[in-house]
Amino acid sequence: MKTAIYPGSFDPITNGHLDVVRRAAKLFDRVIVAVAENADKQPLFTPQERVELVQAAVRGLRGVVVDHFRGLLVDYARRKKAVAIVRGLRAVSDFEYELQFALMNRKLAPQVETIFLAPKDEYTFVSSRMIKEIARLGGNIGCFVPREVLVALRRKLSL
Amino acid sequence: MKTAIYPGSFDPITNGHLDVVRRAAKLFDRVIVAVAENADKQPLFTPQERVELVQAAVRGLRGVVVDHFRGLLVDYARRKKAVAIVRGLRAVSDFEYELQFALMNRKLAPQVETIFLAPKDEYTFVSSRMIKEIARLGGNIGCFVPREVLVALRRKLSL
Amino acid sequence: MKTAIYPGSFDPITNGHLDVVRRAAKLFDRVIVAVAENADKQPLFTPQERVELVQAAVRGLRGVVVDHFRGLLVDYARRKKAVAIVRGLRAVSDFEYELQFALMNRKLAPQVETIFLAPKDEYTFVSSRMIKEIARLGGNIGCFVPREVLVALRRKLSL
Amino acid sequence: MKTAIYPGSFDPITNGHLDVVRRAAKLFDRVIVAVAENADKQPLFTPQERVELVQAAVRGLRGVVVDHFRGLLVDYARRKKAVAIVRGLRAVSDFEYELQFALMNRKLAPQVETIFLAPKDEYTFVSSRMIKEIARLGGNIGCFVPREVLVALRRKLSL
Amino acid sequence: MKTAIYPGSFDPITNGHLDVVRRAAKLFDRVIVAVAENADKQPLFTPQERVELVQAAVRGLRGVVVDHFRGLLVDYARRKKAVAIVRGLRAVSDFEYELQFALMNRKLAPQVETIFLAPKDEYTFVSSRMIKEIARLGGNIGCFVPREVLVALRRKLSL
Amino acid sequence: MKTAIYPGSFDPITNGHLDVVRRAAKLFDRVIVAVAENADKQPLFTPQERVELVQAAVRGLRGVVVDHFRGLLVDYARRKKAVAIVRGLRAVSDFEYELQFALMNRKLAPQVETIFLAPKDEYTFVSSRMIKEIARLGGNIGCFVPREVLVALRRKLSL
Repeated sequence: MKTAIYPGSFDPITNGHLDVVRRAAKLFDRVIVAVAENADKQPLFTPQERVELVQAAVRGLRGVVVDHFRGLLVDYARRKKAVAIVRGLRAVSDFEYELQFALMNRKLAPQVETIFLAPKDEYTFVSSRMIKEIARLGGNIGCFVPREVLVALRRKLSL
Repeated sequence: MKTAIYPGSFDPITNGHLDVVRRAAKLFDRVIVAVAENADKQPLFTPQERVELVQAAVRGLRGVVVDHFRGLLVDYARRKKAVAIVRGLRAVSDFEYELQFALMNRKLAPQVETIFLAPKDEYTFVSSRMIKEIARLGGNIGCFVPREVLVALRRKLSL
Repeated sequence: MKTAIYPGSFDPITNGHLDVVRRAAKLFDRVIVAVAENADKQPLFTPQERVELVQAAVRGLRGVVVDHFRGLLVDYARRKKAVAIVRGLRAVSDFEYELQFALMNRKLAPQVETIFLAPKDEYTFVSSRMIKEIARLGGNIGCFVPREVLVALRRKLSL
Repeated sequence: MKTAIYPGSFDPITNGHLDVVRRAAKLFDRVIVAVAENADKQPLFTPQERVELVQAAVRGLRGVVVDHFRGLLVDYARRKKAVAIVRGLRAVSDFEYELQFALMNRKLAPQVETIFLAPKDEYTFVSSRMIKEIARLGGNIGCFVPREVLVALRRKLSL
Repeated sequence: MKTAIYPGSFDPITNGHLDVVRRAAKLFDRVIVAVAENADKQPLFTPQERVELVQAAVRGLRGVVVDHFRGLLVDYARRKKAVAIVRGLRAVSDFEYELQFALMNRKLAPQVETIFLAPKDEYTFVSSRMIKEIARLGGNIGCFVPREVLVALRRKLSL
Repeated sequence: MKTAIYPGSFDPITNGHLDVVRRAAKLFDRVIVAVAENADKQPLFTPQERVELVQAAVRGLRGVVVDHFRGLLVDYARRKKAVAIVRGLRAVSDFEYELQFALMNRKLAPQVETIFLAPKDEYTFVSSRMIKEIARLGGNIGCFVPREVLVALRRKLSL
């Protein structure tokens, strides 16, 4: 059985993330969506909230489980016996950072491979950061996030 | 009559911005230079100061007016009945962010088109951030900003 | 009245090109889709065929006319009294070449501005070259080109 | 059983390619290294020679088989019931072309996912094109290609 | 005698930096590794500590001296009668920022040339920021930094 | 005495190239502008003509000599006892290719360092290829090339 990990802050999960999860689920027997607790930037949602929003979003997807982790990603991946770390690639700037991150992780844990997937083209411009910004300014983000996230964002931002 | 909006923080306006304004003014009947009030990063100048510095810089340019706005750019653009949002492109990294921003705005307001202009090559490396940094360190920024901005920067930084 | 030129080889015109034409038509009073006769790479369609395919594709679009030209683009733009040259930007590699091209043209003809538009995200990966390659290999390109182009490509490639 | 396809011209296979094959073999039950016969650029080696060089290079790798194909990659992938197309990513320029190619293939065959792997950092600058160029000029390419390729290149170029 | 300056925050110095110093030392008679005191981001190490770590790392390299500076880099370079500022280039995103920085510095001090060097490929993904992050999370960074830096990082982070 | 090599096809030399030569001449005791004879693309000018045009252009520059070479650049650099290969960087696409080329050359000859210089910003968009294209179409290229090149291009293209 091959396990892959899809790590991220998921603050909050977007339709772009969800699209990557679905694609990964077709490639691996088990996909762990792993919410990173130690984000340097101050997250809008608590780790617990982020985990719950991911759980609501991936409900019903076969072979997909949700978890959270602290510490080094590659240590977590080793504990989970994952063969791969999955990352979505949207843009060139993503790519550069992701490539550096993947090469660093390979140095730290050669047995875990990083693979890159391209999200659906219509999600190319969707990032958690932009979505929070637009929601704060009163924009309609209904087509960029799962229903539960929309509700949670409105409550959190008191809109 | 076709109206275009040139939005930005303009903290402060540079000769590179001014070059883009002049180019846009040849393409559209009216160009609104729109100072964004809600910048996440802490601006050096207040919105009021930034508006005044832009006004001093664009004085005499036909069809160019200065304004400020809060909230979502596309909402503002719709209220102003703008057909276009104008953005300057200097580098690849600009381009990527700008493209994502444009595609997001198109999703939110399909009737407003984003157009990109290239500033004069000698302004390729001029950004508000770099100019403030150099001014702080005592560098001569006289050839990168309008005269009024030079004076205002010196006063603000107590140089 | 403001005229813009949208130049290209259009070998053949794609839905991505057409999307740019429609966007340009909202910004300018007149848009000339200008087929370049002197392409260095050997085109699949003759200039005459390419012009006809563009004409069929833009039929009914207000303010859009089709033309062809030899020689320097900026000379043609000047003769047509165009205020702008329109270019579609899909990727970073596009952007770099286009920026160099725009700066060179500005040097040759400062009065003509180059503006960049982003095609619809679903056309990001559509290029004439890729479409011809896929058509040659028997792939279905029906959703990437106008109907007339599909027919013409099949006939030309004897599929 | 999950099958992945690693397509390419492999003209000839390099240590960079081989590194990607090894990584893919850990992720999938079966990896088909698929030599494309219809390369537009004139290859140095015939399809038959390229297949043989790949076979010599991957000998002993579990789950790796070698094949060749004509026509559309996605049609071939469907016939082989592959869940994934594997591509190596070395540089930003690679990335852009590869992303366009992946999105186009997804449109043509939504059930086949494209995944990107990063080759070992020391192979970042190794491409078949550069290797042939250096071999032609008499440079030592022994550390960039498998032993059999080195011999074959010398014979082909009559060095 | 030709002097070059290799400026940076060096918070802390990495093996990638050290690789650039060694390369620069072969090109110029004297290389000044110049620790910038006025970093905007809050450094982990004090200027004094950073200078000492650089000194320990470059010990024994001929023609290499360590210094620190405040204020504008080009003013410092002029005082030191440097002909060149040396910068390491790892990625495209580096390149863009560095190019802007170099062009700006050229405008401020035309007599000082900026030259770019590529660090060893295995250091492509090594940055001070990533190293501190990994050290904080308990990762092994022994192969990315000089011995003294490893010790200092452990003490500073109380690991 | 430190020697650097500035290699290229120089088909023909442009003001952008010349700008790089001038900058390199300030950094090294001797700069050899080395015309590559074995360009894969068919050059417009013969190696002999290209050498003569470079000679005319660099006349009077101290420490600059002109030469031509066949075979591998790094072999030539070793024979000339050069410490550095100089390359101009204009754009991101340049950078990627150049970086791969530099890393490959370092592998082949570790003792020769590649250094990158940024040409003057107004030459960012000047390439031999674009200049020949514009000259062919009758454009005025007087501000992009030395006087002798202008004359030679006109004669060669029978304008």
